[in-house]
Amino acid sequence: MAEATPKVGIVMGSDSDWPVMSEAAKVLKEMGIPFEATVASAHRTPVRAKAFADKAEHEAWAAIIVGAGAAAHLGGVLAAEVNIPVIGVPIDATSLNGLDALLSIVQMPGGIPVACMAVGKAGAKNAGVFAAQIVGLNSPEVAAHLVVYREKMVAEVEKKARLLEKRIADGE
Amino acid sequence: MAEATPKVGIVMGSDSDWPVMSEAAKVLKEMGIPFEATVASAHRTPVRAKAFADKAEHEAWAAIIVGAGAAAHLGGVLAAEVNIPVIGVPIDATSLNGLDALLSIVQMPGGIPVACMAVGKAGAKNAGVFAAQIVGLNSPEVAAHLVVYREKMVAEVEKKARLLEKRIADGE
Amino acid sequence: MAEATPKVGIVMGSDSDWPVMSEAAKVLKEMGIPFEATVASAHRTPVRAKAFADKAEHEAWAAIIVGAGAAAHLGGVLAAEVNIPVIGVPIDATSLNGLDALLSIVQMPGGIPVACMAVGKAGAKNAGVFAAQIVGLNSPEVAAHLVVYREKMVAEVEKKARLLEKRIADGE
Amino acid sequence: MAEATPKVGIVMGSDSDWPVMSEAAKVLKEMGIPFEATVASAHRTPVRAKAFADKAEHEAWAAIIVGAGAAAHLGGVLAAEVNIPVIGVPIDATSLNGLDALLSIVQMPGGIPVACMAVGKAGAKNAGVFAAQIVGLNSPEVAAHLVVYREKMVAEVEKKARLLEKRIADGE
Amino acid sequence: MAEATPKVGIVMGSDSDWPVMSEAAKVLKEMGIPFEATVASAHRTPVRAKAFADKAEHEAWAAIIVGAGAAAHLGGVLAAEVNIPVIGVPIDATSLNGLDALLSIVQMPGGIPVACMAVGKAGAKNAGVFAAQIVGLNSPEVAAHLVVYREKMVAEVEKKARLLEKRIADGE
Amino acid sequence: MAEATPKVGIVMGSDSDWPVMSEAAKVLKEMGIPFEATVASAHRTPVRAKAFADKAEHEAWAAIIVGAGAAAHLGGVLAAEVNIPVIGVPIDATSLNGLDALLSIVQMPGGIPVACMAVGKAGAKNAGVFAAQIVGLNSPEVAAHLVVYREKMVAEVEKKARLLEKRIADGE
Amino acid sequence: MAEATPKVGIVMGSDSDWPVMSEAAKVLKEMGIPFEATVASAHRTPVRAKAFADKAEHEAWAAIIVGAGAAAHLGGVLAAEVNIPVIGVPIDATSLNGLDALLSIVQMPGGIPVACMAVGKAGAKNAGVFAAQIVGLNSPEVAAHLVVYREKMVAEVEKKARLLEKRIADGE
Amino acid sequence: MAEATPKVGIVMGSDSDWPVMSEAAKVLKEMGIPFEATVASAHRTPVRAKAFADKAEHEAWAAIIVGAGAAAHLGGVLAAEVNIPVIGVPIDATSLNGLDALLSIVQMPGGIPVACMAVGKAGAKNAGVFAAQIVGLNSPEVAAHLVVYREKMVAEVEKKARLLEKRIADGE
Repeated sequence: MAEATPKVGIVMGSDSDWPVMSEAAKVLKEMGIPFEATVASAHRTPVRAKAFADKAEHEAWAAIIVGAGAAAHLGGVLAAEVNIPVIGVPIDATSLNGLDALLSIVQMPGGIPVACMAVGKAGAKNAGVFAAQIVGLNSPEVAAHLVVYREKMVAEVEKKARLLEKRIADGE
Repeated sequence: MAEATPKVGIVMGSDSDWPVMSEAAKVLKEMGIPFEATVASAHRTPVRAKAFADKAEHEAWAAIIVGAGAAAHLGGVLAAEVNIPVIGVPIDATSLNGLDALLSIVQMPGGIPVACMAVGKAGAKNAGVFAAQIVGLNSPEVAAHLVVYREKMVAEVEKKARLLEKRIADGE
Repeated sequence: MAEATPKVGIVMGSDSDWPVMSEAAKVLKEMGIPFEATVASAHRTPVRAKAFADKAEHEAWAAIIVGAGAAAHLGGVLAAEVNIPVIGVPIDATSLNGLDALLSIVQMPGGIPVACMAVGKAGAKNAGVFAAQIVGLNSPEVAAHLVVYREKMVAEVEKKARLLEKRIADGE
Repeated sequence: MAEATPKVGIVMGSDSDWPVMSEAAKVLKEMGIPFEATVASAHRTPVRAKAFADKAEHEAWAAIIVGAGAAAHLGGVLAAEVNIPVIGVPIDATSLNGLDALLSIVQMPGGIPVACMAVGKAGAKNAGVFAAQIVGLNSPEVAAHLVVYREKMVAEVEKKARLLEKRIADGE
Repeated sequence: MAEATPKVGIVMGSDSDWPVMSEAAKVLKEMGIPFEATVASAHRTPVRAKAFADKAEHEAWAAIIVGAGAAAHLGGVLAAEVNIPVIGVPIDATSLNGLDALLSIVQMPGGIPVACMAVGKAGAKNAGVFAAQIVGLNSPEVAAHLVVYREKMVAEVEKKARLLEKRIADGE
Repeated sequence: MAEATPKVGIVMGSDSDWPVMSEAAKVLKEMGIPFEATVASAHRTPVRAKAFADKAEHEAWAAIIVGAGAAAHLGGVLAAEVNIPVIGVPIDATSLNGLDALLSIVQMPGGIPVACMAVGKAGAKNAGVFAAQIVGLNSPEVAAHLVVYREKMVAEVEKKARLLEKRIADGE
Repeated sequence: MAEATPKVGIVMGSDSDWPVMSEAAKVLKEMGIPFEATVASAHRTPVRAKAFADKAEHEAWAAIIVGAGAAAHLGGVLAAEVNIPVIGVPIDATSLNGLDALLSIVQMPGGIPVACMAVGKAGAKNAGVFAAQIVGLNSPEVAAHLVVYREKMVAEVEKKARLLEKRIADGE
Repeated sequence: MAEATPKVGIVMGSDSDWPVMSEAAKVLKEMGIPFEATVASAHRTPVRAKAFADKAEHEAWAAIIVGAGAAAHLGGVLAAEVNIPVIGVPIDATSLNGLDALLSIVQMPGGIPVACMAVGKAGAKNAGVFAAQIVGLNSPEVAAHLVVYREKMVAEVEKKARLLEKRIADGE
């Protein structure tokens, strides 16, 4: 029952993060998981950020996925408000290649975790997969989607391998 | 019902990681979550590592917490085998201060997530809390433990604040 | 008039930061600037942190000095609440040598500044001096203290230079 | 009274820094704060740099904003001359992504602070806002501008959020 | 006898690594060393990766060259399965410039080595040369190829030197 | 036949590197591989370094293991002289934690490979194992040693795992 | 007397370094210092590199300027051969932004110095200026050139400052 | 004639740098080069620093060796005043392992060079050797000292090599 699947939140510090964070949304759609996405800045709109966290906890969402760049505090700020899992995606938004966002997200002090993914699109995609793994613990539908998702990945790698092997055999 | 609470796995690349990883175990105990902990190296004992992952998935554990240092592949190697959440804890085990373990864990390619925590003890503790947050989504008991856990943290900060304020007022 | 000198706040994420942050307090005392110091964690006690910021703004303090380590969000979280200057001191509290705290503080996104000082004690001392420079813009007393403070530094360097020159002349 | 508002200086090591540093000028204009901007190199024109600092202190400016790249000594060199606040903006001007300028500015030794902002345009903008916060402590006009500035930021984030939510709802 | 020369394997985590890894293939061809190249992901297709390693060991290949980016576990995962030399090539595939792949490959724990080459094309080329040096220990043909290869490099540098010297003499 | 096993060279930039490099020697002894070890600095004794390389090539050794710290040029300098495999071990000998030695060794330009191991003792040990893997390609005795070596590692991990599991079961 | 001015050598690891290293040549020309420039690789053509160093020492040149990227050993290799000053210029030639070349050049062990300049063109230009400063110690002509060179820099900064001030006054 | 040998200056930002910088002094003594050493801070005592530079230039010293930690501006500040060679020694004086001092010294902008040595004692020693190489260009006595110095280094390495070889032969 799709309506029984808990929601996942996606929040990002700036709308310019959407090309990265949409990777998470794509995975959630593919897995049949409803999500709510918005923009909220930890620094410019702390009230709005807190309201999103409160809604997520009140409505018993399964996780909040947070994308942010630079001094990426948004994940920590939301995690400070809720007891549901918060997943952070560092975004490469400054000259420092995302290392600033990565350390700002991953180095959370003891007691308030944020689950950090890789910098950028791979991380956003994995945030979607990881949220699905959490949902899948109690949703056979989502668990089944995850199995199919992985089988597709295997098939895709094998197809690419065959193509490359052929190109090499053809003397390229 | 305590017996209904799903298990969490803790696996580390070397027994020398236990002083760090025991922080995760402590939290799980405090939250009333059963866990199974062992040593398995991705490189020296890949068969053993895979067996642990298979058991975790087969017995429907809620998460696997993985601690590793240096080229910390263990989290990725387990994540490649299962569809349950894998939480990685980078351990500062070389001259590079844990940066090697951090990047080896957090920079997972798209499709196979590992949720990375902070380097060292804070990260191990947070791995325990994060696993509890996952379990707490479906366990009112664990959710209640999390609320208490956070209240205790607030009380502890407030107590420390009062003590510091007093020391300063006393002219220290 | 000492009572006319505006206050400066000092807040730190953990009482273990006091040996570093007391350097700021020492300078403020020396400059005759009243201050209020406490412990408040952005993540464990966000309500308390916000309350401190609100008080600072409501009472028209001249600045808030914030010390924090790891994913050091406290400065940004307070800066999001007030329009008075916030000065951040990164603390070396993890295996990453304070680089995590430094980037978490200095890389604030456009619109909400935190003035970052050096990592550790030098930074805490300079946070005190910098707050005094702000206060000194409108306080001749504090401005005079700053002049004396610098003269003392010059004298101290000159004294050390003479001692070193003597040691070398003595064939050490 | 606009004439009562103290001036802020903007100085940069090279005219090629202006596209970055003009972000600070823009904010100061928006806040009704008069400023004087010029080019002066700590290394090529130390006399000129010192003269600018002396003028700033003599005319009781509220702050000096300094932009510099590479081994960015300009902020420290000016701070060595004055007791008014110096705000540094690291500029990404070499292959090292601004890390060289960042460390050269932020790691000032105890006694002579430079308030470091983020690398690049966000930092330059924040230097303007931070200078305005200093001025605003004693200028109700500037303080009022700061309140409006922040309200605009909130409105802008909310507008972007609505647009993104609509795009997602429209199935993009 | 060309048929007596042992094979070298080339495996990469994604077909997008081929423009880099083809540098290794080019060298092997030039040295008259037969090779087999394919795509296999440590995380998406662990079974396939293991199968390639098993084949390499079973058929007594001289080495496996492994190219991977991000959290580059593929080299370590293969090295865990075989006792023939594994040579790793870090690929610059994320915003972190290949530092993530470099540390993930080079920092292997004691007992299971992976021989790490430089990041990118230079590393892939050198992986080919290094594999040839291993083969050359027991193959006079390949050893002779290596001597010629080096002579060509010397001649090429000398030719470039003459051209540059001429350009400078011509007043360029 | 032990006399048929080719030699491996071990050379280090300073005798202070021996506590690290002896890890390589220990492995070679355990594998029954004869080795010759000495000190030679690329910068202080380039003639001596070249002589060692020439001897290694002339006597058809299987590999040269090179340990060096700081600007670790020794590996590259030897590799420039020979066509046998050169294995580099970065040593943590400066305040930069071995990152300087690591980059100086691993980033060799195209054409002249040095196989880089991990920084420090793990790297030295793995240099020994890797040299053994090269020798083992043509020595059934060494190949057999490698199999035993790995079995011992597995047994050791399993023993440590049992001990840790017992300690945990005992309520530690 | 131009013929009395000692020569300076310029050597680079690859002809692709010329666009950077020509900055050094330009300065030397401007200062009236004769120079000899060539290509020589420490790894591919060690004999050629040594020959260049020997010639420089034999002909009593004033300095050798060395440009190299990646594991930039060329400076150290030449410095090992001569007792005249060697000046190194790290070149940004890999994905690691020149950090590899910088550490390979600057971290020379005690006894054999290489004077390291900034990464890239600024460093190459400064290598030329620094060589001129060495020559200028005993050449009044070159010393005079250096004075003029600096005056030109001052004039250029002042001109740029006036232009920028005008643009700002014009309301740009 | 010892009186004909030009002087070398040694200046450091703090007397706590002397245990490092005395390595430079030791070499100069050994080479028979007169030197003058003092303490002067670029930030706390800019007038004193400038006076030292002026004296050095006025008295035609051969070089100034500058040791500094953190945001190490002292070298650049002196180089801005003189046309004689300035040699910088980064000192590891903060939690960032000397990387801050290294980048602050080495990344000088085009036009004003500072010759950067390695971080710490090796760099200080090499600053002494490098200054001697400059002096040696015009002093046969110092040139002769340099030849002896290098011969001693060779002898020392050879002695250490024999000792190590003996220890190994003795089965250690």
